[in-house]
Amino acid sequence: METLASNVWTVEDYVAGVLAGDRAILSRAITLLESQSPLHERKAQEVLQRLLPHSGKARRIGITGVPGVGKSTFIEAFGCYLIKQGHALAVLTIDPTSRRSGGSILGDKTRMENLSREERAFIRPSPAGDSMGGVARRTRETMLLCEAAGFDLLLVESVGVGQSEVALRSMVDYFLLLLLPGAGDELQGIKRGIIEMADDILVNKADGENRTRAEQARLDQQASLACLLPATPGWKTEARLCSALTGEGIPEVWLRIEQFYAAMDPKGVIAKRRQQQAADWLDDLIHDGLQRRFDRSQRVRARFPGLREAVLRGETTAVAAAAELLAAFDRNQENTDYDHKN
Amino acid sequence: METLASNVWTVEDYVAGVLAGDRAILSRAITLLESQSPLHERKAQEVLQRLLPHSGKARRIGITGVPGVGKSTFIEAFGCYLIKQGHALAVLTIDPTSRRSGGSILGDKTRMENLSREERAFIRPSPAGDSMGGVARRTRETMLLCEAAGFDLLLVESVGVGQSEVALRSMVDYFLLLLLPGAGDELQGIKRGIIEMADDILVNKADGENRTRAEQARLDQQASLACLLPATPGWKTEARLCSALTGEGIPEVWLRIEQFYAAMDPKGVIAKRRQQQAADWLDDLIHDGLQRRFDRSQRVRARFPGLREAVLRGETTAVAAAAELLAAFDRNQENTDYDHKN
Repeated sequence: METLASNVWTVEDYVAGVLAGDRAILSRAITLLESQSPLHERKAQEVLQRLLPHSGKARRIGITGVPGVGKSTFIEAFGCYLIKQGHALAVLTIDPTSRRSGGSILGDKTRMENLSREERAFIRPSPAGDSMGGVARRTRETMLLCEAAGFDLLLVESVGVGQSEVALRSMVDYFLLLLLPGAGDELQGIKRGIIEMADDILVNKADGENRTRAEQARLDQQASLACLLPATPGWKTEARLCSALTGEGIPEVWLRIEQFYAAMDPKGVIAKRRQQQAADWLDDLIHDGLQRRFDRSQRVRARFPGLREAVLRGETTAVAAAAELLAAFDRNQENTDYDHKN
Repeated sequence: METLASNVWTVEDYVAGVLAGDRAILSRAITLLESQSPLHERKAQEVLQRLLPHSGKARRIGITGVPGVGKSTFIEAFGCYLIKQGHALAVLTIDPTSRRSGGSILGDKTRMENLSREERAFIRPSPAGDSMGGVARRTRETMLLCEAAGFDLLLVESVGVGQSEVALRSMVDYFLLLLLPGAGDELQGIKRGIIEMADDILVNKADGENRTRAEQARLDQQASLACLLPATPGWKTEARLCSALTGEGIPEVWLRIEQFYAAMDPKGVIAKRRQQQAADWLDDLIHDGLQRRFDRSQRVRARFPGLREAVLRGETTAVAAAAELLAAFDRNQENTDYDHKN
């Protein structure tokens, strides 16, 4: 694991190193971002602020799908294809279920063996975090650093269980959903809302004896897409086939993404989406910050479990319970020594 | 307008009057709930707390649909039918767009002329409020009062523009969506998410020359329901026809609702939904209360517009802006004389 023990590194060192595209310094800057220490946090925010004017130029692509759909194999195949096309690629993961103790990225590197050997690819696993919000925040900030380091493509993968897809959708331009062949059963695991967020759907593992089932799944998906509004206004979501194993359909994925940007960029759709994402992110951070202050408040913690139980049992109203808890919060803010850490 | 000038009314007066089913006192208790004065608010919460053990026994039915779909005419016809069946009925409205200056309910009474003449019907328009949250909160509390007053059916209507349907879904057991014949065009106004929340869909105005178009709309809806998960697990949402004008389909609506409760109640689905609604409501109230404290903070207000603009223009990160605003909030909470009103 990289350590940040050497606080001799200045903001200037980080900024210059990242802008020069130095992988080792980029890695270290990301580790700084992920640190929980207030000292590191301040320094990380300074670095970020300095690099901000150099960010925003990459295409931001989100990839999701249930565990087992073959995301790593797909990203390996797709990533190697993109490198051959001359792109520089950062692969990030957003995974609230990962509880890295140290920072070993061995897992991810062996997952994508070929891609990790490419000089123009940078693979970074999910940051650890105590909440979805914390993990999402660090992933967003890592994206900005990677852009400043000169990568022109960001592939951000989510684990596809629960809230991580929603968080991912809120930080990318284009959102790709991978599905397994044999829609009927597997579809159960995919919430309808996820399908509504997709800019394209890819039925993976369309090879060998799966071919026929995959085509059927694709047709089913294509039919049910007719029921839905597109995730991006003016863009028609399509269901397609792909095999990360044989490479079939991989170039077409990239073609679709290029078409997406070619069609949406001139209309200002991407810029508008990014603006909205930034505003939503600000609101989320404020919401999280306020909730954290509330949750940490001693007086609130003493009362919350009992009052919540009383509300569930119908013994008190939510209004009365909320009023009592908020009054406890106010007293707490006034009178006690309070940890201001964000 | 009823006034609350006479503060001689005690909590006991309100409680006894509501429990006796006295309409005038129920009306006055609701007006107390809607008052913005802290004194009234405290008294209202005491009344509510006392009446709580007597609430929860009514069936809670939500009705929504775009303006023009004929909600009032439907509720008038449906309500009169229910009265004839021996039910006692409270009709409430949740409408964040209504800005009643006084409290005239003339508008609603003339809207439902026949129903308003029925002794066992109680019609109350939407409370005024400065936010969706405020309106929703008062509607929820009014529901509890009406239950304590002995009404066995609550019909709560939302205006069908924007967020009010979501708020309504979160406070009723069964949710009915009214649609117009001629699905194609009119459907545009209905967000997909609203259809996903419906326990049944009713194509209204299926009379005269609309009959054929209504049947086509019904078939279209029925087909697209196949794409959706049911709003209530284990209950199959159906699309049906109805004419509030001729009365066709009205008894069948009630039959469906009876079937809904007969199927869902023994499985504990209703109880579980209500528990979840109470817990969500508590979370919402806390969230609103925290956000209100933040929005009212002088130091935050001085900085927010400028920082938000900077985030939108990409000049600062959402993280840096949020940190600055939350720090301003903390200082505000500590140092200034702060309005603790919930």
